[in-house]
Amino acid sequence: MSLLLAFTGVSPDSWVKAINEADPSLEVVIAGDPGVDLSSVRHALVWKPQAGLLKSLPHLETVFSIGAGVDYLMDDPTLPDVTVVRVVDADLTARMTEWVVLQVLLQHRRQRLYDAQQRQRLWRAHSQVAARDVRVGIMGVGVLGQDAARALTMLGFDVAGWSRTPKTIEGLATYDGDAGLDAFLARTDILVVLLPLTDETRGILNAALFAKLAKDGPLGGAVLINAGRGGLQVEADIIPALERGDLIAASLDVFQTEPLPETSPLWDDERIVITPHVAAESDPRAIARYVAGQIRAAARGEPLKNVVDRRRGY
Amino acid sequence: MSLLLAFTGVSPDSWVKAINEADPSLEVVIAGDPGVDLSSVRHALVWKPQAGLLKSLPHLETVFSIGAGVDYLMDDPTLPDVTVVRVVDADLTARMTEWVVLQVLLQHRRQRLYDAQQRQRLWRAHSQVAARDVRVGIMGVGVLGQDAARALTMLGFDVAGWSRTPKTIEGLATYDGDAGLDAFLARTDILVVLLPLTDETRGILNAALFAKLAKDGPLGGAVLINAGRGGLQVEADIIPALERGDLIAASLDVFQTEPLPETSPLWDDERIVITPHVAAESDPRAIARYVAGQIRAAARGEPLKNVVDRRRGY
Repeated sequence: MSLLLAFTGVSPDSWVKAINEADPSLEVVIAGDPGVDLSSVRHALVWKPQAGLLKSLPHLETVFSIGAGVDYLMDDPTLPDVTVVRVVDADLTARMTEWVVLQVLLQHRRQRLYDAQQRQRLWRAHSQVAARDVRVGIMGVGVLGQDAARALTMLGFDVAGWSRTPKTIEGLATYDGDAGLDAFLARTDILVVLLPLTDETRGILNAALFAKLAKDGPLGGAVLINAGRGGLQVEADIIPALERGDLIAASLDVFQTEPLPETSPLWDDERIVITPHVAAESDPRAIARYVAGQIRAAARGEPLKNVVDRRRGY
Repeated sequence: MSLLLAFTGVSPDSWVKAINEADPSLEVVIAGDPGVDLSSVRHALVWKPQAGLLKSLPHLETVFSIGAGVDYLMDDPTLPDVTVVRVVDADLTARMTEWVVLQVLLQHRRQRLYDAQQRQRLWRAHSQVAARDVRVGIMGVGVLGQDAARALTMLGFDVAGWSRTPKTIEGLATYDGDAGLDAFLARTDILVVLLPLTDETRGILNAALFAKLAKDGPLGGAVLINAGRGGLQVEADIIPALERGDLIAASLDVFQTEPLPETSPLWDDERIVITPHVAAESDPRAIARYVAGQIRAAARGEPLKNVVDRRRGY
């Protein structure tokens, strides 16, 4: 059985090693290597594969993405009618939760203000609201959103979730759909975004949405934290929302264009924390185990897990 | 029944209001107010009271501290032989855990590096170790240390604790005493300090201790996080330890002299995060409820909780 690796911008070396460790019986072939025979490839592990490559594989059955988001595949008009599998991995989930908790606490505890005071050698304490009085709203309550909700609830925050379709999650107040969005936003001081990027969610983080966030909250305004996808946000609306007071701060790991262009005004705004799409790095070892396990299960005739609904786009 | 408030550097206003709300039957008197009759005072709520004041109260029975640390009382040679009670409050504990988790994640996820890159408009990802591979060691595993341990364990860190005397805590590996200290330090990548300040712990965070921390860990060195008391650390040893590589970074909320003098070299070191003793602000409402409840319990003949052992100093 062979597994094709087709990556853009990611070195395959550590992935080859990780797959060999996870299942030595899997033959790994790398897209673009000279003399590679692609005619028998049934499974591919990909990150932004060359357009048209997947369509050229006559026996392709399954495409695994190394990242949690598969929007880059859904947006590819040449994607053949094969099964697309998202990665759902405890390691990746834990890393995302680390980043989300860090950014929520950093904003809640005004770390950027204390950093600025440190540079001025200024010793000045500011009154601090308790986490229980801060309402965190998580947009997107799949595996990542639920794990972030669990961690933030444990730290005492008042957490609710919003999803496109209704969900019942133990211990979490949830809102859903267009009908539930305004009420969700009106009770949200810190908005954490972990949505998939689809036709329905593209550009959802825009001026109109920012204007609906809580303004009377204990932080003195609303905070945007986006760890989902850059395409969710209308970047040009962020600084105007800060100027208007619809937002007071933001933490962004993802951007409409990545790398974020040097000319972007976001870089220079002290109210915005920028990290270079590092919230949840894919660990080759963990994901190789996940993919190899799924391929073995499929070979035994078991159904694949975390299959993308092509109609929904995630 | 009257309760004396004796504060230095803290305004009593919000405290008077909070005590009136917690128990309207408690008469509040404020040290220094003209015409105050101190002769009948049996209980005092204090923060760094004027030296000699407590000794002058003929019927004083109990002193409550508004902060978790009572070292300032233990260091007062004029402190009379009365019962001293520490505050142990869920609100204060939660706030301390927020700060500790923020600083552990900030160091673990290299937020200061990404902040510097943002100022340079530099998009560069760095490989990120997983929390499960990072060993956090908590010095001081009382109520605060155990709560921080619980939160950090939940986030995936490999947590152990050290205390002066042996403790058995479910789900937490513990070391104790001088005999256990070296092994504890040798397995610690991020050292979180929540010790009380006593004769035994004063200056415990010094060059010799820093040299015993793990150096081969996944972060490339050891991190110091002190939220206990400034007197625990030998401040002059911190920058030299950073220069030698015994430490790679630090987060400090407490200092030997507070406010931290403008002349301190700690301010300017980018490897050091400085916050102005704000890790766990005392919430007057929560602490007033705690104190009023204890006074009522004592009036019913029940034993006081969280009484300081004058011999141990905490």
